[in-house]
Amino acid sequence: MANIGTHCILEMYGCPAELLNDEQFVTQAIREATEYGLATLMGEVSHQFTPQGVTALGLLAESHISIHTWPEYGYAAADVFTCGNRANPQKACNFLLERFQASRHSLTKLVRGPEACCDPDDAPRLEVEPIALAEPVA
Amino acid sequence: MANIGTHCILEMYGCPAELLNDEQFVTQAIREATEYGLATLMGEVSHQFTPQGVTALGLLAESHISIHTWPEYGYAAADVFTCGNRANPQKACNFLLERFQASRHSLTKLVRGPEACCDPDDAPRLEVEPIALAEPVA
Repeated sequence: MANIGTHCILEMYGCPAELLNDEQFVTQAIREATEYGLATLMGEVSHQFTPQGVTALGLLAESHISIHTWPEYGYAAADVFTCGNRANPQKACNFLLERFQASRHSLTKLVRGPEACCDPDDAPRLEVEPIALAEPVA
Repeated sequence: MANIGTHCILEMYGCPAELLNDEQFVTQAIREATEYGLATLMGEVSHQFTPQGVTALGLLAESHISIHTWPEYGYAAADVFTCGNRANPQKACNFLLERFQASRHSLTKLVRGPEACCDPDDAPRLEVEPIALAEPVA
């Protein structure tokens, strides 16, 4: 069988705190990233933390998107996991980077699924993308 | 600042299909894994797919747990991401492995957060655990 899918681990730095602390913004970003990544949103749950910070999870037909924010650090931890051939998790990540106005980021892609690990000596295949740095925000 | 947290990527193989296709079982497993991992569940969402397969997401005070199942392959893709010093994502993973009766698994730990990536030349630090194989199920 083919690999199940791709799990993108996205670190976003230098994001404006007011975006990171806006639950509605974060939730809407997941909805739009889902669409941009050619996936289908089946459910969602989110939480506004006190004194700050947001977590939002999107349940996709193709797996999930999560975003956790730390406004005090200008940092958001996201992941986009999609299975199947249609969805494009990289596109969803690109959307999130733009929407969160990240000045720096890193993206790690993990191949998920049985073929990656059918040999017990074979750890999950890991492919680290070159880190593309956006211009620092003014 | 310290790293934000640890993101465990868990592949579970050789799990009984009837467990993997039981939405209530999968949801309950997240609740118990949360407790076992000393974390706090703040919200959840799940979906039973047709003809088979389940996705369940748990929103934690410390980040999230996700489980996606493919009963037809005896496979479940899970991840446990926790921040802070109290929660123990490894313990939550150990619980899931036992609860899903996985005969094989692999676990990859990712360090998340700014300190891991404050240097643009520094990709997220990746630590691959030796793959501990349980005895194959009879």
